[in-house]
Amino acid sequence: MAASEGQWVLMATGRSPTNIAVIKYWGKRDEALILPVNDSISVTLDPDHLSATTTVAVSPSFPSDRMWLNGKEISLSGGRFQSCLREIRKRGCEFEDEKKGIKIKKEDWENLHVHIASYNNFPTAAGLASSAAGFACLVFTLGKLMNVKEDYGELSSIARQGSGSACRSLYGGFVKWCMGKKDDGSDSLAVQLADETHWNDLVIIIAVVSSKQKETSSTSGMRDSVETSPLLRYRAQTVVPSRVLKMEEAIKNRDFDSFAKLTCADSNQFHAVCLDTSPPIFYMNDTSHRMISLVEKWNHSQGTPQVAYTFDAGPNAVLIAPNRKTAALLLQKLLYYFPPQDKDLSRCGRPSCTSRDEDTGSEIQGRR
Amino acid sequence: MAASEGQWVLMATGRSPTNIAVIKYWGKRDEALILPVNDSISVTLDPDHLSATTTVAVSPSFPSDRMWLNGKEISLSGGRFQSCLREIRKRGCEFEDEKKGIKIKKEDWENLHVHIASYNNFPTAAGLASSAAGFACLVFTLGKLMNVKEDYGELSSIARQGSGSACRSLYGGFVKWCMGKKDDGSDSLAVQLADETHWNDLVIIIAVVSSKQKETSSTSGMRDSVETSPLLRYRAQTVVPSRVLKMEEAIKNRDFDSFAKLTCADSNQFHAVCLDTSPPIFYMNDTSHRMISLVEKWNHSQGTPQVAYTFDAGPNAVLIAPNRKTAALLLQKLLYYFPPQDKDLSRCGRPSCTSRDEDTGSEIQGRR
Repeated sequence: MAASEGQWVLMATGRSPTNIAVIKYWGKRDEALILPVNDSISVTLDPDHLSATTTVAVSPSFPSDRMWLNGKEISLSGGRFQSCLREIRKRGCEFEDEKKGIKIKKEDWENLHVHIASYNNFPTAAGLASSAAGFACLVFTLGKLMNVKEDYGELSSIARQGSGSACRSLYGGFVKWCMGKKDDGSDSLAVQLADETHWNDLVIIIAVVSSKQKETSSTSGMRDSVETSPLLRYRAQTVVPSRVLKMEEAIKNRDFDSFAKLTCADSNQFHAVCLDTSPPIFYMNDTSHRMISLVEKWNHSQGTPQVAYTFDAGPNAVLIAPNRKTAALLLQKLLYYFPPQDKDLSRCGRPSCTSRDEDTGSEIQGRR
Repeated sequence: MAASEGQWVLMATGRSPTNIAVIKYWGKRDEALILPVNDSISVTLDPDHLSATTTVAVSPSFPSDRMWLNGKEISLSGGRFQSCLREIRKRGCEFEDEKKGIKIKKEDWENLHVHIASYNNFPTAAGLASSAAGFACLVFTLGKLMNVKEDYGELSSIARQGSGSACRSLYGGFVKWCMGKKDDGSDSLAVQLADETHWNDLVIIIAVVSSKQKETSSTSGMRDSVETSPLLRYRAQTVVPSRVLKMEEAIKNRDFDSFAKLTCADSNQFHAVCLDTSPPIFYMNDTSHRMISLVEKWNHSQGTPQVAYTFDAGPNAVLIAPNRKTAALLLQKLLYYFPPQDKDLSRCGRPSCTSRDEDTGSEIQGRR
């Protein structure tokens, strides 16, 4: 370490979008390593809309690791944060900034403490994958700070240990989280199926039914499902594998019909498994049901899917339209049937996926 | 036929209770014969509370078959009514009343027309098995009128062709509908597992969340599930068979713990299959969910099930308490969390099952 030890602070800032699963992840086969019972596929949102922004700082003057989420200090003692910090520190590389008098050797990272400040520009723990964006951003930004050379696949496997679905936020476009087979989880990582330019007509509208924090966390919910739902295993072993293949085809061919049918069916099946859990888990409410009915009736009346819906671990609808024209029609219908005084129907964005490197102003296109 | 042809009217009146499935019937393997994809088990309610009362009349002066439901004439042209009428007529036996000058030969029943008047003392088509009570009563009363000698098992197989779950309303107590294997459906009938005296501490409370007619009829709902739900087949072939065995054990041993756990799990799984259907079917609403949460939290806090819940094809909760004391506690909780000005929480009855023969005033105990 340089002579100026204690004087300097090194910082990095990154931004990661959230992602929306179209083939759902629900159920772990390994709780500690966060290894799933099935593959999943997601679309990464445009970071301009729903994203986490994280700044990490390191300095010899920091006596301990600390973190602030949306301005409020939170504990880093949990195993998930510790896993991410440990795995990134292990992979840190030598860094030197002669002008500032900073010189960090590979082994120094183990002893340097970090301060982390992260912000979500959308509700936390309301079933909008805030932890996915958050952990992806944490790992990405720490990796940048610590000069980590690993590729996005390897980083995704680290982010996975923070929050399973975080691994899918490392890439833009359409992303598959391969469940992997190995006991150590090293092959349980994300791969990009198609980048954000592949199908950029798609428009995603998030209808925020409630921004309250959910009653059942995803973590405890999926643990209960694995332990008590007779249908979960069948879904994971028999239904999902064939759906994943069909979904990959649909994405490759930009086949909105198949994409929409698979997306809706898989959302409903995930919530079916939640209901088959003891005690049952209800993430959707009457408003969610009414939104589904609206879309189903519309799709039925047209004879072909106009819009797809998917719900994560919360009542908020994620609606996917094939183009801006249909999205405008959808918005009209939503505003008519769910007037804004009742509901906060607002966020709308293209599922683009640039990852802005805010430190330098450069954008890493097509990689995340 | 007697000389007084055209002068006489012969009548019979019967009453049949509704039944509540604790292992659910959902899905047919034969639509016309109403053959199910799995066995089911139900408890028959006390006919003093939720029942259908039917009067059937026959007279040579009636030019056609006609029926009135709750005072309003309905069509008998549907295949289900026709099946029941045809099967009962086939089995009619000679009848003579010398005093009134009535003599009906076996073959006459084919040519005599009936008038049927049926009343439900509870909401129709609101997921409270009105068709079960109705068709059971129709078949039972027609059978009585036409001097049919067949046993309840055989009658149940006829009632099944009116409405599947009707076959279970022919008996009191706990009843199993054996799915059967034969193509002609002759072995798809109800058997009594235990009569109404076996476990008469049980108290059943029906919390009427909504008495509106359901949006999706059971018939079309289960057809959609069979056609589109990947989970239905697994449930029918793998989950239900073992649950049926466990439920039979629980009933035999009056083991409320196991009974309650199986009842709740199977209700939730049935609704999970509905949700896994395309388009998804929602029978429960937010109030139903809140009732489940109330029971689940209570059961969890006591470490052992206090009360079981089950929901049929509607939002109304059927709550089963092991005894009157617990039922009183449950009612207190319901009235506190769901004040009566909001909801019509009312009907409460012991799951007793006498079938009153109103024509003669005699009661057929222990058979239905």
